[in-house]
Amino acid sequence: VRARFYLPEIDDTGQGVLAGDEAGHLTRVLRLGVGADIDVFDGRGGMFHARVESINRNRVRVRVAGSVPFAAESALRVTLVMSVLKGDKMDNVVRDAVMMGVAGVQPVVAARSEVRLSTVVRGDRTDRWQRIAVSAVKQCGRATVPAVHAPFTLEAWLEHRAPDPVLVLSEPAAGGGRPLSEVRRTEAVQLLVGPEGGWAREESAAFRAAGFQAVSLGGRTIRADAAPLVAMAALYEAWKGW
Amino acid sequence: VRARFYLPEIDDTGQGVLAGDEAGHLTRVLRLGVGADIDVFDGRGGMFHARVESINRNRVRVRVAGSVPFAAESALRVTLVMSVLKGDKMDNVVRDAVMMGVAGVQPVVAARSEVRLSTVVRGDRTDRWQRIAVSAVKQCGRATVPAVHAPFTLEAWLEHRAPDPVLVLSEPAAGGGRPLSEVRRTEAVQLLVGPEGGWAREESAAFRAAGFQAVSLGGRTIRADAAPLVAMAALYEAWKGW
Repeated sequence: VRARFYLPEIDDTGQGVLAGDEAGHLTRVLRLGVGADIDVFDGRGGMFHARVESINRNRVRVRVAGSVPFAAESALRVTLVMSVLKGDKMDNVVRDAVMMGVAGVQPVVAARSEVRLSTVVRGDRTDRWQRIAVSAVKQCGRATVPAVHAPFTLEAWLEHRAPDPVLVLSEPAAGGGRPLSEVRRTEAVQLLVGPEGGWAREESAAFRAAGFQAVSLGGRTIRADAAPLVAMAALYEAWKGW
Repeated sequence: VRARFYLPEIDDTGQGVLAGDEAGHLTRVLRLGVGADIDVFDGRGGMFHARVESINRNRVRVRVAGSVPFAAESALRVTLVMSVLKGDKMDNVVRDAVMMGVAGVQPVVAARSEVRLSTVVRGDRTDRWQRIAVSAVKQCGRATVPAVHAPFTLEAWLEHRAPDPVLVLSEPAAGGGRPLSEVRRTEAVQLLVGPEGGWAREESAAFRAAGFQAVSLGGRTIRADAAPLVAMAALYEAWKGW
């Protein structure tokens, strides 16, 4: 397998410039030089064979040749609306969700989140998650980089959310969720997954008021960082979205 | 929620003795004393309300009262036959598989496993995984402790394995796996999941010779430590096993 690089801009002559992390990875980590054969993906569904044409400091100019095969996108567009978890748990959720095929990640801060919105914003965590998404795309073979959106409070997200239907993952203790197999299939869905401490009472009430469908995955409690993957897998399977 | 303790032996008069880790957790971590109300589970499907009757050194005698509700076992019996992963990745796999409802875990060491069987055996890792299974049972609300079996090499497992049908999770690069929805449903299944480096050619050939069914979860590569959870979730969903 040739090394893969993210190259969002390819001009009409089939040339582009790797910069920043991508150029550093090519020159310093992999120690590739002029003439090296690589793969590049534009993040919007194109993956190409390419050759390094020149290297000037941290700018690596490449020329693309034919396209190369890549992992197809899921027919089911799942946006994971995920309560921000502490530390590297959220990093792992973003990585695995992207590798599984998520269409986008919307971080939200809920009442019982152990992380505050100000901490997320100040810590440049969105940048970090976007870099993790690019790296996960390389690992899993996709040619599309899903968006990691700027974090919102749950209230702000409720007000400004996208129109796709919302499924809320319900914890066994809260009761009342329906099995996925009983939920009507759609082509795009927002999957809302709560924090370690679960949803607050007012949050659950707001979800009902908004008409969100609560879904359950059996009677056993799953860890908050495993829950999004487990729910996504069940969703892809139930709705033939792999 | 009352604290839960593992009490495998309950006598005919409804009494039992917590020992070892369980007693230490009660007395030193939670600082509970005589008269405390707790829940105990026998690991074989019984969960009971109980009261602490006496404490002598590290022996805590309890008396059980009525049974209490617990999380039902899955109707689908999945044994996870898992290639041992490095370090705490395997711990997390055991924990999450138990919380999801696994019926048993069989660690195996495959050709490309980054851990050797001798290391697993010398390191008392089976004991550690069994303790993790007990702790996961408490967290998820099950009353049944799934067995974590002694590790085998893959060859030895192939020779001595249980008779339940085997599904092998196939990586996208290897190709050829069928979607779970096309596989005939059974009540018990062994789910075989490979190491970081995938299956060796001879291993895949041995699986075909043994009549194992290769299954796939779409075209995107999933991390080795997320793969067992994703595959279990898909299996429970596909076969209505939650």
